[in-house]
Amino acid sequence: MLTLVIGNKNYSSWSLRPWLLMRHFGVPFAEHALLLDTPSFYEEIERWSPNRSVPALHDDDLVIWDSLAICEYVNERFLEGRGWPSDPRARAQARSAAAEMHSGFVALRKQLPMNLRRQPDGYHWNADADRDIARVQAIWRGLRQAYGAGGPFLCGEFGIVDAMFAPVLVRFAGYGAPIDATAQAYGEAIRALPAYAEWHAAALAETVRLPDTDNLAAEPAK
Amino acid sequence: MLTLVIGNKNYSSWSLRPWLLMRHFGVPFAEHALLLDTPSFYEEIERWSPNRSVPALHDDDLVIWDSLAICEYVNERFLEGRGWPSDPRARAQARSAAAEMHSGFVALRKQLPMNLRRQPDGYHWNADADRDIARVQAIWRGLRQAYGAGGPFLCGEFGIVDAMFAPVLVRFAGYGAPIDATAQAYGEAIRALPAYAEWHAAALAETVRLPDTDNLAAEPAK
Repeated sequence: MLTLVIGNKNYSSWSLRPWLLMRHFGVPFAEHALLLDTPSFYEEIERWSPNRSVPALHDDDLVIWDSLAICEYVNERFLEGRGWPSDPRARAQARSAAAEMHSGFVALRKQLPMNLRRQPDGYHWNADADRDIARVQAIWRGLRQAYGAGGPFLCGEFGIVDAMFAPVLVRFAGYGAPIDATAQAYGEAIRALPAYAEWHAAALAETVRLPDTDNLAAEPAK
Repeated sequence: MLTLVIGNKNYSSWSLRPWLLMRHFGVPFAEHALLLDTPSFYEEIERWSPNRSVPALHDDDLVIWDSLAICEYVNERFLEGRGWPSDPRARAQARSAAAEMHSGFVALRKQLPMNLRRQPDGYHWNADADRDIARVQAIWRGLRQAYGAGGPFLCGEFGIVDAMFAPVLVRFAGYGAPIDATAQAYGEAIRALPAYAEWHAAALAETVRLPDTDNLAAEPAK
């Protein structure tokens, strides 16, 4: 019995990553949602996750408490390796890109937090975030050019590396970051995934607002 | 032909990780060292690493540019999977711990940067770093208790998870962080590795000093 512990779908970019992987590949799991930045989150998180953060995957009594480790576990246990490209060169570079996303892009993550309801409103970020925005797209171009022939995702077919970068596409759209043609087409491919559409609709249906990241332009007409 | 691009051995904690894994398991590779924070680093790094940071592994013309991705690549290509525990539960939790190290412990990493020459001198860090120091040791106790029966390392035999945490032991020793009996014994096991001893000796032989992290107590007697 698998339970994936996640945060708010509108805001929790780290939750989206393994959720998207598992849903896309049809791995059955229960969701347990904790609302970020609420007292109940802090009361409950300890029993779900030893590092007090989401996501965490429970497979019966086994706890896997990091997004990338969850993806590797799901890949080994349920996907027979299909989470990564089968070509060793593509796999090595997909893992490099996924790992760079996992530990890096601090300015992008801080200044353009994920918010699926958000729409561009003239908000500006600094030069560090500009560099992150450019570097992400350089990674995407590099993978697409080298390994993307078999499909619209970074290494052709959808995989872990795409799950890791999916929230960045949400950020780019929500803040109006300048994107190239590769990022435009890649975003369309991600948004066309039924699993992504399911997450997106659920995020928009959430009623909780975190005022620091929401903006008025994204509010529905009254 | 493998080339591992690294920084100064005294300071580059991310370089130590894959280097230690490869040397411990006898994977042959050439080293290419770039001195951190020098003009030549910034001139050269672009041709070695697309994210402009060390370490990077070159396997002929294939570039793997992240420490954890390098470890996964080495594990698949040269170690037949011995880099991770063979038990799936241990492997899932070892990967969780390695991934938490890879993306986390920001306070520990910023306030107690690795410096093998350093000796405790009364320097103090803040409560965030205290929490990191405690959390790291909780991880170590958890892994040792669950999976450590077969040897002195976190999951028994030495593996990727130990390579990821080895620099933290250097930090704990150099700053005099309070450590428990598990961390004490674990540090002794790491320091007893011939591969670690080789890195340590080479670090102490380096003549370059980065003044921000060095301290007088660690200078040799004149």
